[in-house]
Amino acid sequence: MLTVLTVKEAQQSVIQSLGDRPGKTENVLSAEAVGRVTAEEVFAPDMLPSFTRSTMDGYAVHSSDTFGATESLPALLKIKGEVLMGKEPPGKLENEECMAISTGGMLPEGSDSVIMIEHCEVMGDQLAIFRPAAPFENTLQIGDDFRRGEVVFSGNHLLRPQDVGILSAFGLLKVSVYRPVKVVIFSTGDEIVPPDREEVDPGQIRDVNGYLLMGQVRECGALAEYRGIIDDKPEELEKALLASLEDSDMVLISGGSSVGKRDVAVNVLDNLPEGGVLFHGVSMRPGKPLIYGTSIGKPVFGLSGNPVSAMFSNILFVKPAIRYLQGLSPFPAFTPYVRANLDSNYSSPGGREDYVRVSLYKQKNTEQEEEIWATPVFGGPGLLNTVIKGDGYFVIPRDMEGLPRRSKVEVRLF
Amino acid sequence: MLTVLTVKEAQQSVIQSLGDRPGKTENVLSAEAVGRVTAEEVFAPDMLPSFTRSTMDGYAVHSSDTFGATESLPALLKIKGEVLMGKEPPGKLENEECMAISTGGMLPEGSDSVIMIEHCEVMGDQLAIFRPAAPFENTLQIGDDFRRGEVVFSGNHLLRPQDVGILSAFGLLKVSVYRPVKVVIFSTGDEIVPPDREEVDPGQIRDVNGYLLMGQVRECGALAEYRGIIDDKPEELEKALLASLEDSDMVLISGGSSVGKRDVAVNVLDNLPEGGVLFHGVSMRPGKPLIYGTSIGKPVFGLSGNPVSAMFSNILFVKPAIRYLQGLSPFPAFTPYVRANLDSNYSSPGGREDYVRVSLYKQKNTEQEEEIWATPVFGGPGLLNTVIKGDGYFVIPRDMEGLPRRSKVEVRLF
Repeated sequence: MLTVLTVKEAQQSVIQSLGDRPGKTENVLSAEAVGRVTAEEVFAPDMLPSFTRSTMDGYAVHSSDTFGATESLPALLKIKGEVLMGKEPPGKLENEECMAISTGGMLPEGSDSVIMIEHCEVMGDQLAIFRPAAPFENTLQIGDDFRRGEVVFSGNHLLRPQDVGILSAFGLLKVSVYRPVKVVIFSTGDEIVPPDREEVDPGQIRDVNGYLLMGQVRECGALAEYRGIIDDKPEELEKALLASLEDSDMVLISGGSSVGKRDVAVNVLDNLPEGGVLFHGVSMRPGKPLIYGTSIGKPVFGLSGNPVSAMFSNILFVKPAIRYLQGLSPFPAFTPYVRANLDSNYSSPGGREDYVRVSLYKQKNTEQEEEIWATPVFGGPGLLNTVIKGDGYFVIPRDMEGLPRRSKVEVRLF
Repeated sequence: MLTVLTVKEAQQSVIQSLGDRPGKTENVLSAEAVGRVTAEEVFAPDMLPSFTRSTMDGYAVHSSDTFGATESLPALLKIKGEVLMGKEPPGKLENEECMAISTGGMLPEGSDSVIMIEHCEVMGDQLAIFRPAAPFENTLQIGDDFRRGEVVFSGNHLLRPQDVGILSAFGLLKVSVYRPVKVVIFSTGDEIVPPDREEVDPGQIRDVNGYLLMGQVRECGALAEYRGIIDDKPEELEKALLASLEDSDMVLISGGSSVGKRDVAVNVLDNLPEGGVLFHGVSMRPGKPLIYGTSIGKPVFGLSGNPVSAMFSNILFVKPAIRYLQGLSPFPAFTPYVRANLDSNYSSPGGREDYVRVSLYKQKNTEQEEEIWATPVFGGPGLLNTVIKGDGYFVIPRDMEGLPRRSKVEVRLF
């Protein structure tokens, strides 16, 4: 009989069991790489910008030629043509010369700064400048954004839109990333019938967890394959698990919520090649009846047949495992939330972490300021409407037995 | 000359200009529908559950047969077989009878509750029950999750994994959703060369905004097509815009950061068929030089060539427009954030909303509690490293001129 672990112990057990990352990587087009994770450091192949650029419309000058300029005593410089966008300047500046330049233009040799068009006036072939330019003013110097050889991203970095933008700036059209993890999902239970069964007999219900888990897994960027409903006889379960482990990186079985069926699942998992059950049960609600084990180095999650239990096990244990296998740290460093006021007293059994589903609403207080309130959505782990009417959840730790009305809660959105 | 709008005014102008939603919808497989938006209400076609189910392993009883049962004086009921999972019960209960049942099993006629296996003991063909069952205890009644005809989702609901789970429970294999919006993206500017240009001449830079904007648009679930770099001569710009408007729902042009180029873009946009420029300039930084107009009822955004400006214009104006056109409210009701302490004084010019890029880190305070701190990442809108080294941003409103160290800021992650 395995003991029930706390959420934190169970998470550590899962992550430790994964060992080294399989490290399967591939080169993908940078243009398609948002949401993927870098498999190695990316270094800047060039200076960015690769030339000194103007950040304003105006005139390139040598700043020392403008020192002391005022409205009443402007500096007078000879205008020596214009820098065209995307071209080298038509010449270099000698003393007391300037050149017209637009935002993004390349500064000519002999200039170090740009006078904004608002601070000067053209007088024939001369420019009157009414205030001094500081060295480097209104310019981007070579390498100001990135210097050649600088680390642009570390390995294990989740690529965002701006990150693929910088790859394109460097002409890096491909990037080495981790391959997506492939997750096989199936459901068990004599009462479960496929979603496409038109008529359901008394005593039967259509599978919920297949679609639910597939959706959650894909939200992590992993590939999900739902293989339908497997007979929960030990030999059938074993056959399905062995076949799935062979061509995937992770297997999720859900169902078998009765004690007898759970024992069958534990036994089958425990006798798989090179592995066994690591824990059975987590002190949380919903989600207590989680079975976790490995075989041939791959994780197998035995999730509850109750959809809300399965959903929370997925959020807390499956997603971190997928993140890890896809190259990220299992838990994000910073997780955003919505801060809300609890609108009723909430009592919790204590002794286990309580994941309270809530719906959110806004209401003005007596000072006419908008406040966010959270209402607990009550219902057992077999009722999907708690997570359909709910917007998210907050957590009551094991050592607390509830929260009073008006408590501040941090709600993570579904 | 159009006046500069506040962020809120500009957002309202964009959303108002979109008018009625085009309302193009399609039926997609529920299994693939996560992230899509329902185009109409979804009603429950059946009761869920469709039969009274046990939520525990134990015995189905009629609760009144157990009233008064105690450890010392158990109720004795005749065991009348077993309910098999997924089957109708083998008969109905008469007075003083019970039937073995597993979690998820169908209650037999004549029973109204389930006694947990822990609270009874088998004695030959009889069951001794040590505590009374309340009516409906340990059962889910017909329709407890959803009643036939009940609204499961409203229209304009963003489908989450649990939502496709409930669709599968009802055997609803397809769902009517809004079509994704198609966005055409191009860049302009004589200095801009395509990302695949191997050698870049002095004065030229590779395009950043094409990949960046494509990534942002796809994160909203829209289709993005990057059509490369268009010559910014008025006739070329007009030709490209007319062609793009014909086969897309929205056009993003970026570039033309010089005053002259911006004026060209404004003129071209203003002379497009059935439309014109609605505003030019927003009092925010970065992102001030945004041009917005419509033609033949479709939105056209003229974004700054500076990538960080373009990125923030996209977050604040393009994304809400896409959300709206894809069936959602333009702004989410609740936006999660990370609360952090600002680690230095920050001064802001005032008079415009300031979107301050920050990187986040954790540090223990004197009580050894972990706190989250935010460091501003300084740099102009032309420097991508501010958003690459940054984790997110917070906003300083127009009427404030900065924040002191230790201020609490709400950081939205990129």
